[in-house]
Amino acid sequence: MRRRGLIVILSSPSGAGKTTLTRMLLQDKALDLSLSISVTTRPRRSSEVDGVHYHFIGRRQFDLMKAAGDLLESAEVHGNCYGTPREPVMRTLAEGRDVLFDIDWQGAQQVREALGADVVSVFILPPSMTELRARLDRRAEDSAATIAKRLENAKREIERWRQYDYVVVNDDLQQAYARVSAIIAAERVRGSRVAEGVEAFVTELLKG
Amino acid sequence: MRRRGLIVILSSPSGAGKTTLTRMLLQDKALDLSLSISVTTRPRRSSEVDGVHYHFIGRRQFDLMKAAGDLLESAEVHGNCYGTPREPVMRTLAEGRDVLFDIDWQGAQQVREALGADVVSVFILPPSMTELRARLDRRAEDSAATIAKRLENAKREIERWRQYDYVVVNDDLQQAYARVSAIIAAERVRGSRVAEGVEAFVTELLKG
Repeated sequence: MRRRGLIVILSSPSGAGKTTLTRMLLQDKALDLSLSISVTTRPRRSSEVDGVHYHFIGRRQFDLMKAAGDLLESAEVHGNCYGTPREPVMRTLAEGRDVLFDIDWQGAQQVREALGADVVSVFILPPSMTELRARLDRRAEDSAATIAKRLENAKREIERWRQYDYVVVNDDLQQAYARVSAIIAAERVRGSRVAEGVEAFVTELLKG
Repeated sequence: MRRRGLIVILSSPSGAGKTTLTRMLLQDKALDLSLSISVTTRPRRSSEVDGVHYHFIGRRQFDLMKAAGDLLESAEVHGNCYGTPREPVMRTLAEGRDVLFDIDWQGAQQVREALGADVVSVFILPPSMTELRARLDRRAEDSAATIAKRLENAKREIERWRQYDYVVVNDDLQQAYARVSAIIAAERVRGSRVAEGVEAFVTELLKG
């Protein structure tokens, strides 16, 4: 049945497993999700690929895109700018395909304001602060000061859980993955979202 | 995480596969659903067991229950009365377990009015009227007049799809089952529904 695409927002403090869940969701061919690639002004980490993890751009280009209204959402975090290019998202939605967003609460709020009815937002919680700290420690590339800053930001991010449609605790990766998949499958058959397709289907059905 | 139980309403015209889906959902131990058994004044069919498919009661007892406010919802269909006893439902919800309701649009509307926030409603559509007619024909126990009446009622039921939260077309039983399971899994982690449990969890988390 024909339907409009969905924006699935996945947010969490860093270290809660969002990146792993995102990768698992994208690898699931049956889900057929495409990822929205953000632009950012922050320096590329050694593990990152331009155009895959982010489009790495300069501050001037970022400001131009923002001023032109080409960004669906934008935010400044840890002194760096992040944003979501509007055009690829709108194109994918119009094709009836779903787009996954890996953004924070500030971005989630802006996307919700811009495209309310098409948005489903999920907040991933870590199982404990101890576990969150351990996961951040294991990321060898971050300095102690960066880790402390991320922990502070994690707390502020966690306080925002109420603005999300769904809340999933990531104490077991497979279970968290199953829950997020179920949320996407369910939202695809939400009445308000498939109304146009069902309307046409029911008209045909009642003729038969 | 502690949460309040959910009322899952499954409605469809007769012949759309609701009874089969209900059985599959109840057999799924992981879902841990219990079925709300309705009372009815209609005669028991040869294939039905009292206390399993319905509690078969007399009209006088039905009227007494209704007058006492012991029914969550009630309706008259094909000249027979149906109703849902309130007490077992409220007890199961309080235990944090979910209850499956196999009722029509009239009942769904009343349950929604009585227990709005706890209700998730799913409408099952047949793949075509031809298929619906074929399925009703295969029920040898119904007379031609009964089948014609059921088809008319089916059309009136189908016109009500807009009042449901989700719409699932049953063109493939396994897929329809997967969709309904996903809806239940998703609604269990809806933010507004787990708010109390998440609130407590986050408070603990931010202390740690």
